[in-house]
Amino acid sequence: IQSKLPNVGTTIFTVMSQLAMRQGAVNLGQGFPDFEGPRELFDALARHVREGRNQYAPMTGVPKLREQIALKTEKLYGRRIDADSDITVTSGATEALFAAFAAVVRSGDEVILLDPCYDSYAPAVELNGGLCVRIPLRLPDFSVDWQRVRDAVTPRTRIILINSPHNPSGAVLHRADMDALADIVRDTGILVISDEVYEHMVFDGVPHYSVLGHDELASRSFVISSFGKTYHCTGWKVGYCVAPPALSAEFRKVHQYLTFCTFNAAQCAIADVLESIPQHYLELPAFYQAKRDHFRSLLAGSRFQLLDVPGGYFQLVDYSAISELDDLAFCEWLVAEHKVAAIPLSPFYETAPDARLVRLCFAKNEATLADAAERLKAV
Amino acid sequence: IQSKLPNVGTTIFTVMSQLAMRQGAVNLGQGFPDFEGPRELFDALARHVREGRNQYAPMTGVPKLREQIALKTEKLYGRRIDADSDITVTSGATEALFAAFAAVVRSGDEVILLDPCYDSYAPAVELNGGLCVRIPLRLPDFSVDWQRVRDAVTPRTRIILINSPHNPSGAVLHRADMDALADIVRDTGILVISDEVYEHMVFDGVPHYSVLGHDELASRSFVISSFGKTYHCTGWKVGYCVAPPALSAEFRKVHQYLTFCTFNAAQCAIADVLESIPQHYLELPAFYQAKRDHFRSLLAGSRFQLLDVPGGYFQLVDYSAISELDDLAFCEWLVAEHKVAAIPLSPFYETAPDARLVRLCFAKNEATLADAAERLKAV
Ligand SMILES: CSCCC(=O)C(=O)O
Ligand SMILES: CSCCC(=O)C(=O)O
Repeated sequence: IQSKLPNVGTTIFTVMSQLAMRQGAVNLGQGFPDFEGPRELFDALARHVREGRNQYAPMTGVPKLREQIALKTEKLYGRRIDADSDITVTSGATEALFAAFAAVVRSGDEVILLDPCYDSYAPAVELNGGLCVRIPLRLPDFSVDWQRVRDAVTPRTRIILINSPHNPSGAVLHRADMDALADIVRDTGILVISDEVYEHMVFDGVPHYSVLGHDELASRSFVISSFGKTYHCTGWKVGYCVAPPALSAEFRKVHQYLTFCTFNAAQCAIADVLESIPQHYLELPAFYQAKRDHFRSLLAGSRFQLLDVPGGYFQLVDYSAISELDDLAFCEWLVAEHKVAAIPLSPFYETAPDARLVRLCFAKNEATLADAAERLKAV
Repeated sequence: IQSKLPNVGTTIFTVMSQLAMRQGAVNLGQGFPDFEGPRELFDALARHVREGRNQYAPMTGVPKLREQIALKTEKLYGRRIDADSDITVTSGATEALFAAFAAVVRSGDEVILLDPCYDSYAPAVELNGGLCVRIPLRLPDFSVDWQRVRDAVTPRTRIILINSPHNPSGAVLHRADMDALADIVRDTGILVISDEVYEHMVFDGVPHYSVLGHDELASRSFVISSFGKTYHCTGWKVGYCVAPPALSAEFRKVHQYLTFCTFNAAQCAIADVLESIPQHYLELPAFYQAKRDHFRSLLAGSRFQLLDVPGGYFQLVDYSAISELDDLAFCEWLVAEHKVAAIPLSPFYETAPDARLVRLCFAKNEATLADAAERLKAV
């Protein structure tokens, strides 16, 4: 059998998690917390299951959850969206990304990706017959060169994908970025996919700038987020997509044949905690900023150079003072010799630049971060 | 925006469930039970969540669940499969179906479907650039005319999809069907997708004949099943795909970018009950056969003619003695006038035959079935 995805192997996240396990290493690779979300969430799940929420959820999502998402969107980004026509709950942000591509990308369409980027984007584009056009972000701050994006637009450009806070770098987009993007897509048929799964992790008093806060962009965007990130439960696989009605209609046509619906009781439980403890997500930026600051202070005096982290839950470090290995080889060496799993940046690129950077996840409890920092300082 | 799926509306299941709700009708439409699965399942879910199974599951599925699936497969179908290389857990059978198509269907490939068939197959084929070639099953028993299937094969044929027990009819395939299919695909590159989500609902002492029990077919098949059906929890969205290593590898490349993984604690809970109460699925055929027999006896004396139901959880009824309306109009009338929601057969067809058939789900508790039968006898 000839593969439709000949270049795809096992994701780097799985590879490094397996290495971490085998080596008994501290795992700062794959992005997931090692602490728990609110107790109320678990109690609510158990209750809804016991009370019989065990059959299919509505295809578009549990109504109360969609209402709570609409309330949050209005509160945070000043945008009123319609819970019925604009929101679709999905089995994680990964499904939402795939469904958005599948809904609008046709054979030969071009999709502009900003490298480095999350590793599911390109295969999802290609499985739907699209071509990825990759524009590198500028080092060292991973900012967007909008002129390069503009120059890459052709009549076949169907989508520009943005991701803020950015995985793997933590870079965030600002109002000026949104305006630049709006300038580029104005009077074209180009759509935007905005991956905002780290929306509640923007630091230093800067608010998250959502596409939903930008009228012109919001009218042509699929905005994707994830409760796995917000409630520290990446294994629950509940995400969602916000898009105007015409785009949501196409999105739903795909979603209804991709997974049809998402775990009913989990949706109910998340709706409950959105309603009962809204301060949880309001306090997340400070919570994760403290982790970032703590981890950085623990690493002071190491031979790793720490890049700035305006958002997300990853710390990029430059290891050029330590090794000349490429980043994958360096990560393999690091996990074998020093028992810390990190993620190399090259799998996020089509063509990786000549840099010595790896990604460390700081969504970990104090003991894990202290243990990891100890080992990293010994390098 | 021009739709990639211009002919797709909201699924008939959603349409009829909404009508049922609005009309306060007894809902025998969308296929889901109105009774609960084993208590142990809920307790196990609550425990795993409380004990911290809240982060990403392995991409291929929780190991214990895959091992339990392998054990069940050997016990029931006499086939040893490898839990690591042959089994992938998915977010429901719907995801598994989509992933199988996406893994192997290329632009212009043909997929043979047997009409009537489940409504997700054709859109999934078409989104992946494939063409559906539809062969009608023979009325009134919905048996396969294998000569017609053979005649429909071309050099572009990539997949033949079978579904036993069959939705919507309940027809089951036998050893002779499998041999006929094996004859057709022998020495070709044609693959098989076998939708076996109702595998534990085959009646009258006949065992389910799985593709996994047929060596020649198993070596070229994706076999798909669903725990939502087995444990009366359609809203949990946990299914799986069994395929030989080379096919599983391609399947997983898609799955990892479609949903990446499935609710971790739900997988753990299902693995627990597969292990601790294996009699549950062994007793399912008798459990559902009793429901079928009970529902049929309740309908004795009605003006509906009952078709045979060898498997599954649907009763087809012929209403030609009652009305000349087409089946969609009849269902709309039935839910409005008699407050019973049923599913018309025409949405399962590309070209519906001139028949007066609707589908009633008997996966309901006694009170629901009695209430529905009362209303149906008044028609
Ligand atoms: C789906 S596994 C990858 C998790 C993640 O978002 C990351 O580590 O970047
Ligand atoms: C996913 S909704 C449809 C449920 C079902 O399998 C059916 O009713 O046929």
